[in-house]
Amino acid sequence: MDVSILLFDNFETLDAFGPVEILGKIDTYTLKYYSLDSGIVVSAQNTKVLTERIDMIPPKSILVIPGGKGTRELVNSQEFINKLKVAAMKSSFCLTICTGSALLAKTGLLDGIRTTSNKKAFDWVKSVNENVHWIRKARWVVDGKFYTSSGVSAGMDMTLGFIRDQCSEKVALDISNHIEYVWNSDSSYDLFV
Amino acid sequence: MDVSILLFDNFETLDAFGPVEILGKIDTYTLKYYSLDSGIVVSAQNTKVLTERIDMIPPKSILVIPGGKGTRELVNSQEFINKLKVAAMKSSFCLTICTGSALLAKTGLLDGIRTTSNKKAFDWVKSVNENVHWIRKARWVVDGKFYTSSGVSAGMDMTLGFIRDQCSEKVALDISNHIEYVWNSDSSYDLFV
Repeated sequence: MDVSILLFDNFETLDAFGPVEILGKIDTYTLKYYSLDSGIVVSAQNTKVLTERIDMIPPKSILVIPGGKGTRELVNSQEFINKLKVAAMKSSFCLTICTGSALLAKTGLLDGIRTTSNKKAFDWVKSVNENVHWIRKARWVVDGKFYTSSGVSAGMDMTLGFIRDQCSEKVALDISNHIEYVWNSDSSYDLFV
Repeated sequence: MDVSILLFDNFETLDAFGPVEILGKIDTYTLKYYSLDSGIVVSAQNTKVLTERIDMIPPKSILVIPGGKGTRELVNSQEFINKLKVAAMKSSFCLTICTGSALLAKTGLLDGIRTTSNKKAFDWVKSVNENVHWIRKARWVVDGKFYTSSGVSAGMDMTLGFIRDQCSEKVALDISNHIEYVWNSDSSYDLFV
């Protein structure tokens, strides 16, 4: 199974690398990093990450879309949104973290889909596409192939939930124990609303 | 204040990027990434990160040292350990995560210093240098300028503790709320021992 992490300048570092840490623990998953133009992208915390071009994302992969301040500009890039839509349509699963759901919402693929996002930016995210079924209080939300999480750290809880759904509760717990992480395993338990 | 994150092939992704997420929230901190030879280093989760040469680490910085399976080989690289010792000696603070403490222990700078590490690898880490005052049960340990954490996610709790010490409890709590992270703020509270 391919895991395709889609990055862009000013992505939020932990949005991407929390889920990456967990997905990387599944031996049968192969992780690769992509961006619109390929080459180096720089996170909001100055991490310079080497990526491949978005068109290279293989079909049927698990697509991971972080948020971050870079999303504010990126929702207005028709080229990026068009290519994200293609990548999301051909994916097996889409996992968004924080304001990553604003990018996916802009493609129209979340219209009518139950979706959550970062608390601090919720009103902005909602304004990007009012046709999405936005849910404010949730650690994460699952609707079909779409997994969307609240802010930053919530992405880790969601990804462990995804692993539970794909593998088993035991596998998810083994990973959380291995990385000494206290997993909030209840998607509806949200302390930050 | 400079924050210098020292990377190497097969570092554990979240060991580095959990603390990075938190340190990056302090406006006066400038984050840069280093490695022995500069250029691209690849994490255990296939993240390709661009780095500068270790000799470029500025004096008086906050040095962050992740762990990961790459440490098993790296403790035997005299060139790396010598340069790490120089970087650590000229740093204001050293933060290690997981088996990053094995690397720092190998320099001799932790001799007699209260130190912790990853649970799964504890016996190996201890064997690297028996002169260190190893503490098995701790989320993290502070001794002088040395902050050492348990496995992976513990690095985030430690880094928030570091921010509490450097700034205030309020600043640490504001950051943990902002990233929707449930902070284990008690360094002695360790569920994973």
